[in-house]
Amino acid sequence: MLLTGTVVADANTVLHDGAVVVSGSRIEAVGEESEVAPQYADHEHRSYDVLLPGLVGGHIHSVQSLGRGIADDTELLDWLFDYILPMEATLSAKEMEIAAKLGYLEMIESGTTTCVDHLSVAHADEAFEAAGEIGIRGVLGKVMMDQRSPDDLLEDTQEALDESERLIREYHGSFDDRIRYAVTPRFAVSCTEECLRGARELADAYDGVRIHTHASENRNEIETVKDDTGMRNIHWLDEVGLTGEDVVLAHCVWTDESEREVLAKTGTHVTHCPSSNMKLASGIAPVWDYLDRGINVALGNDGPPCNNTLDAFTEMRQASLLQKVDRLDPTATPASEIFEMATINGAKAAGFDELGAIREGWRADIIGLSTDLTRATPLHDVLSHLVFAAHGDDVRFTMVDGTVLQDEGNVTTIDAETVRREASEICLDMDLEEARRSAQKQKP
Amino acid sequence: MLLTGTVVADANTVLHDGAVVVSGSRIEAVGEESEVAPQYADHEHRSYDVLLPGLVGGHIHSVQSLGRGIADDTELLDWLFDYILPMEATLSAKEMEIAAKLGYLEMIESGTTTCVDHLSVAHADEAFEAAGEIGIRGVLGKVMMDQRSPDDLLEDTQEALDESERLIREYHGSFDDRIRYAVTPRFAVSCTEECLRGARELADAYDGVRIHTHASENRNEIETVKDDTGMRNIHWLDEVGLTGEDVVLAHCVWTDESEREVLAKTGTHVTHCPSSNMKLASGIAPVWDYLDRGINVALGNDGPPCNNTLDAFTEMRQASLLQKVDRLDPTATPASEIFEMATINGAKAAGFDELGAIREGWRADIIGLSTDLTRATPLHDVLSHLVFAAHGDDVRFTMVDGTVLQDEGNVTTIDAETVRREASEICLDMDLEEARRSAQKQKP
Repeated sequence: MLLTGTVVADANTVLHDGAVVVSGSRIEAVGEESEVAPQYADHEHRSYDVLLPGLVGGHIHSVQSLGRGIADDTELLDWLFDYILPMEATLSAKEMEIAAKLGYLEMIESGTTTCVDHLSVAHADEAFEAAGEIGIRGVLGKVMMDQRSPDDLLEDTQEALDESERLIREYHGSFDDRIRYAVTPRFAVSCTEECLRGARELADAYDGVRIHTHASENRNEIETVKDDTGMRNIHWLDEVGLTGEDVVLAHCVWTDESEREVLAKTGTHVTHCPSSNMKLASGIAPVWDYLDRGINVALGNDGPPCNNTLDAFTEMRQASLLQKVDRLDPTATPASEIFEMATINGAKAAGFDELGAIREGWRADIIGLSTDLTRATPLHDVLSHLVFAAHGDDVRFTMVDGTVLQDEGNVTTIDAETVRREASEICLDMDLEEARRSAQKQKP
Repeated sequence: MLLTGTVVADANTVLHDGAVVVSGSRIEAVGEESEVAPQYADHEHRSYDVLLPGLVGGHIHSVQSLGRGIADDTELLDWLFDYILPMEATLSAKEMEIAAKLGYLEMIESGTTTCVDHLSVAHADEAFEAAGEIGIRGVLGKVMMDQRSPDDLLEDTQEALDESERLIREYHGSFDDRIRYAVTPRFAVSCTEECLRGARELADAYDGVRIHTHASENRNEIETVKDDTGMRNIHWLDEVGLTGEDVVLAHCVWTDESEREVLAKTGTHVTHCPSSNMKLASGIAPVWDYLDRGINVALGNDGPPCNNTLDAFTEMRQASLLQKVDRLDPTATPASEIFEMATINGAKAAGFDELGAIREGWRADIIGLSTDLTRATPLHDVLSHLVFAAHGDDVRFTMVDGTVLQDEGNVTTIDAETVRREASEICLDMDLEEARRSAQKQKP
């Protein structure tokens, strides 16, 4: 396929009359339209105002999509124990499938082509199948919770690890290697040492399997880990093997100097989720400091109940604005740095090589946007537009691994109307009372 | 006209199958569709998923629209003296007209029906005419700058006041009283005491004329005012008469206890501009404290060069999230409080009575949104959706004073394509070099 438009190949390379040629799952050529297009005149052709690498959601909860707007403006523990955990405990396999589909649909529509996805304890197969069917690229993992968890979600340690291993064998590298596995302890608070160490063993036993968990999002969390282990959270994760180049830690809001040194030294990836950190009042992550230390920082929307969308453009804008005001420095985290966080840094965190920029030979994950909008007028600087003014709504074309998933604004691999209707119907009937009573027994 | 849908009449009143009847410029009836609609079956009928009061931009720079994206990630003084002031100094009358039209177009498209609009020093007539023609409701004012300003913008004090008075006589109460005047000193730094006192005299001399200025946005600003006057900025404004129920102060980021007491005691309105305060790294305004004291706080986008859009939905989300993380309290500034800031509080700041809610007899400024979107699925809570997930893109219907300005997504009172094309053309030719050299002589 021949794609033409303004090509933002990476944060430093903009071709104003550019062309990209895709062959199979890879990018065959990138260049000026006048040079490239004539050679591929017989190819199927699409033209969009702006073409850019697909965005990467470095920390996503697709299966929480049914809880969008369910518990806004709520205290964190109420949010978690009265709504989110009961919802996760309540959803049937079919409902979890619809929840996952709703999440992947929203990402495909709004330009996220790769996600690092924190599923739930049960019914992970449904999410893997849905991701594979819809065509998104993803590193998914079933959540493990083997202590301090509601009865409906609490697992036996070995069973959690065994189920994770079954899923690795079933899905890691599936769907043409678009779908991979991340061993996913929920967070140190809800996992025993045995579970955390087991996660590391599993990741080491299977080539390319990653580790994905929440870390140091919340001050209560780090207090609890300190009480349990005598250590700061990142030190504890390091102690049990959950740092390193194959590890993605979401949030990292509350870290001290020595923990940041560990993150940098071990090559651990951090996913910054600015909207979630603001909405749940977790705090402001020291992103500028992580970047200064050479830590790879990706961006993530977290889940719809704490965001409330999976629009990665919102997170780009939010990440830049939040660091600027926190540092009282308007030059902090400029558009180019943010664009890298949402593209190539995310690809590195997800562990896919040759992904996150439009380059010859690289994986063909590409999105196309319209800028025929008042909010895009004038267009002094396309990178600035993408970071500060664009929305996921502007995305009209989504390609993953060379396959078109959205064309002229229509998602091609799933019936969007049906997914939305089914999701709405589930929510009308959703009754969390029983699961809530159970979950509240574990509420601190 | 009969309008049906989910009617969010105000922050506490949602009619899930509601109807609104508009007659002339006023709302004739509001109620359940089943009761109201049959009585008005002969009326023209529109149906939208959600109907709500038009949003109010309590601090806007419409004529800065041509500078959208012109100077992102830039130090504040560079931003102002290298880009914004030179641009304002450079624009011709015709260019200022296009700039204003672009701003009003964006607001009408995205659901802002009333704006408190800070124009520029010259060519204010063009903005007044454009606002009147397009049909937005607005409180507009020519900017006054009579000290510490670039030569191209610097005015003689009396001439600035005389020109303001001419504009008051020409436009205050014009276009069926949709357009009103606010005397608009830029800020204390760029205005002499004579100018500031003159602003108060003008506002007192003409019934309904308001005062609108920037205040305490930036730490350098308050230092300069302290050096000039020996007073904190709000005390100085109070001293020269620029506080009171007819005064709108934009920003108020840096205020101390005694200044907040003045704001509360005098009934001065504050417009909070969260995105601008973040992007320019001004700081985080103590909105929760203002609200606790009973100060009326509105919301504003400021100008496209520091936002980068005029989408009021973005500001609702941003305002809530920013207060939550600043207070480390996820219950801070909940959706209902934010919705009031963007509607009825804004109407109060703008000085229009019977505006900012959908009530019988009130002014018919109403917008209609689509929620047939993945990002609006499920729709657990419509108010939460409006504040945390909706975009201006979702607005399909805009009515001001009973007149339809946007219908099924098409703006009816101006040719949007032409405005966008003309705006883009101006920007291609815009040469700020000469004005920049002049402006830089005044750069601190």
